[in-house]
Amino acid sequence: MIKIVLVRHGQSQYNEQNRFTGWTDVDLTKQGREEARRAGEILLTNKFVFDVAYTSVLKRAIRTLWIIQDEMSLLWIPTDKSWMLNERHYGALQGLNKQETAEKYGEDQVQLWRRSVSVRPPVMDKSDSRYEGADPRYKDVVDSVPVTENLDDTEQRVLAYWKEKVEPSLHENRRVLIVAHGNTIRALVRYLDDIPGDGIATLSIPTGTPLVYELDEQLKPIRHYYLEENKRKVHDAVEAAEGAPDVRSE
Amino acid sequence: MIKIVLVRHGQSQYNEQNRFTGWTDVDLTKQGREEARRAGEILLTNKFVFDVAYTSVLKRAIRTLWIIQDEMSLLWIPTDKSWMLNERHYGALQGLNKQETAEKYGEDQVQLWRRSVSVRPPVMDKSDSRYEGADPRYKDVVDSVPVTENLDDTEQRVLAYWKEKVEPSLHENRRVLIVAHGNTIRALVRYLDDIPGDGIATLSIPTGTPLVYELDEQLKPIRHYYLEENKRKVHDAVEAAEGAPDVRSE
Repeated sequence: MIKIVLVRHGQSQYNEQNRFTGWTDVDLTKQGREEARRAGEILLTNKFVFDVAYTSVLKRAIRTLWIIQDEMSLLWIPTDKSWMLNERHYGALQGLNKQETAEKYGEDQVQLWRRSVSVRPPVMDKSDSRYEGADPRYKDVVDSVPVTENLDDTEQRVLAYWKEKVEPSLHENRRVLIVAHGNTIRALVRYLDDIPGDGIATLSIPTGTPLVYELDEQLKPIRHYYLEENKRKVHDAVEAAEGAPDVRSE
Repeated sequence: MIKIVLVRHGQSQYNEQNRFTGWTDVDLTKQGREEARRAGEILLTNKFVFDVAYTSVLKRAIRTLWIIQDEMSLLWIPTDKSWMLNERHYGALQGLNKQETAEKYGEDQVQLWRRSVSVRPPVMDKSDSRYEGADPRYKDVVDSVPVTENLDDTEQRVLAYWKEKVEPSLHENRRVLIVAHGNTIRALVRYLDDIPGDGIATLSIPTGTPLVYELDEQLKPIRHYYLEENKRKVHDAVEAAEGAPDVRSE
């Protein structure tokens, strides 16, 4: 049986400030670091081992991975960092306070931007100082740098990465850890569990909580569960999401 | 002009305890972490930027790299970790106290093991619990795991890695950082500066001190220098080595 573990980064500075983050490269908060440490600890306690790790090029995900590697004494495992695992690009909303944005555009519009798979937030102007096209980390892929994304756009690049990098590793029996973001993990869950249409929109991925997928030889999911300290909290991802308010998804 | 920076990891626990380390996976001391932080700081102050980093699969080198990346806000740069940049394998001496070893075998013998390019320390028995062949990090290269090495053995694998991974990056104008070990950096210095025979044996590489090589288009060195906080300490690597006792080379 093949196991893969998905971890959403710990709390970031913008999560804490209730801002749209997207590709903004904010760091973890102290709480976020502690969440990452506990993720590593519980993986170790449950005897997980990894041969390879995949993450984004954003600091909050990389640092979460590093803390997990450190906790598990797995600093040496090969790691691929890719923009294709970055958080959904949030266009011109990046950096804005979610509450203020709701007051300006209305709650319904903000919910559409956040939850519709097809609606895109306003585009980030390429002359905007926040536009990532000039950032050296994207210089080899500057034509791929988005100015806004809907959930489908994000899913498309995440799945391209999954097929190019992750699937071959799984077929080679490598034990894979992916540390990424709310919307990129959501895209993987949607793909693996074959969730149709907007059904994914209400799925919330908790920060710093290892989500284990057990897959068959065709990489179809057999089951999935969260690894949590309190065993009573182990539950199905979709069930968890439907009841829970989501205050830090992007 | 092409610039490449070589950094030897900060002080490790075995450096501090005066033990032969080799492939033993000891961590940095608190002082070692501080050395790494200062290396990152001085690289940043001197406006160095890197596109790619290479390091070994040993914790003391990887952590030094991570601390430098953190200090320079370069967490996102691609990183390749390879056993071929590991410290020289010290055979059955790994873990032994250098002073006790000198008392047992004589100072002359220990100096031969440490400084001759052709003499190998006693082999590590494959049944020894210290033998790395069973370590999962080497499972894809188990036939290459040495049981002892002389300086020439180490140099051979380091140069194979240099030609396979580092040279192509340099030819693509990528700015390269290598964080490695006393004997692997020594091997690169010997190659770049074309130092004959045992001439390398007295060259000491200080921990946590960026060594900058400026290379021409054919990757031949134009000059090299250490980046140090105290400008009076900037000096030629070979000059520095000849005067200085070397207490923490392996």
